[in-house]
Amino acid sequence: MSSQSRSGKRAAPRGRRDDFSALRDGEVAVALPDHSDAALYFIGRIRTPWQRREQCPKNARESDAVCAVELDPHWIEGLKGLETATHVLLFYWMDRSRRDLVLQVPRHYGEQRGTFALRSPARPNPIAVSVARLVRIDGNVLHVSGVDCLDNTPLLDIKPYFASTDSVPDAVVGWHARRRGRLDKTRSSR
Amino acid sequence: MSSQSRSGKRAAPRGRRDDFSALRDGEVAVALPDHSDAALYFIGRIRTPWQRREQCPKNARESDAVCAVELDPHWIEGLKGLETATHVLLFYWMDRSRRDLVLQVPRHYGEQRGTFALRSPARPNPIAVSVARLVRIDGNVLHVSGVDCLDNTPLLDIKPYFASTDSVPDAVVGWHARRRGRLDKTRSSR
Repeated sequence: MSSQSRSGKRAAPRGRRDDFSALRDGEVAVALPDHSDAALYFIGRIRTPWQRREQCPKNARESDAVCAVELDPHWIEGLKGLETATHVLLFYWMDRSRRDLVLQVPRHYGEQRGTFALRSPARPNPIAVSVARLVRIDGNVLHVSGVDCLDNTPLLDIKPYFASTDSVPDAVVGWHARRRGRLDKTRSSR
Repeated sequence: MSSQSRSGKRAAPRGRRDDFSALRDGEVAVALPDHSDAALYFIGRIRTPWQRREQCPKNARESDAVCAVELDPHWIEGLKGLETATHVLLFYWMDRSRRDLVLQVPRHYGEQRGTFALRSPARPNPIAVSVARLVRIDGNVLHVSGVDCLDNTPLLDIKPYFASTDSVPDAVVGWHARRRGRLDKTRSSR
């Protein structure tokens, strides 16, 4: 099954354009594999106030909007015991992203970096993960804060967040820290 | 494409058994959807010292073994800039797990809980995420510590770990904390 078979499109042999965005200067695409290796089920939808990408918060902690994770009732028994967790990992599918970029130039950074050094939705497998605060569970609906995705985003998984294995407070992403350092300097020299 | 089409098996309408494990008392399976919604590419393999599940560390921080994440060279440009990160999120596919369980009784806990309240590999979309310490990158190979998966596990994605959005040191999973509390009490009363 081609990744684009649902929309009726075929992947071009190289540098496929998709329905979302063209390449920017400095961006590089590679051919997508000619077959896929595994298949996903969408198990629900995430409802947020954001209908267009430019409305979304830049990162999930910028907003304290409470959003609704609507689990398909088929899977509802899977929630048993989750109400005791303060935070969850939400996995979702960024279905409007191109999958063939290896080098990207994000608009707000303006520098070329590898896809795996970025959290951009454009990646071979556009799976996002967000740490969300679990406010409450009503039946098949989780009310959470700390998500930044578009309304109606397909849900792939929910897991409890364990501080013991998931939290690394002193982790650093060097390119980002240096960039922030420069920004802070710019601000303080104003 | 059925999730099982590569092995030539068909999902039974209810409570499909897979090649890995039968149901334990208290476990509940539901029918899998009759179609999948999206497709994944395996982009590499994770090489670890563990060939069988019972050899794997119980959680990723139990072991400081340095493991090799072998990215398919096709995607190598995507690593540019990642060497500046101290930690990465590794996404991988637990391809030997059944996908239809909603209630599970993990052997080491002995209590029935929902799939989404557990980190068990058995889930509708068996995507795992591990926070790994990035030791170094040699070409297309990442040397990391902090993974607990079987040797040759298919790789889905690599992302930089941002403490600002990914780290929640005070998160609590109530059922697990209570269980630890009981264990600590048992130990101290010996």
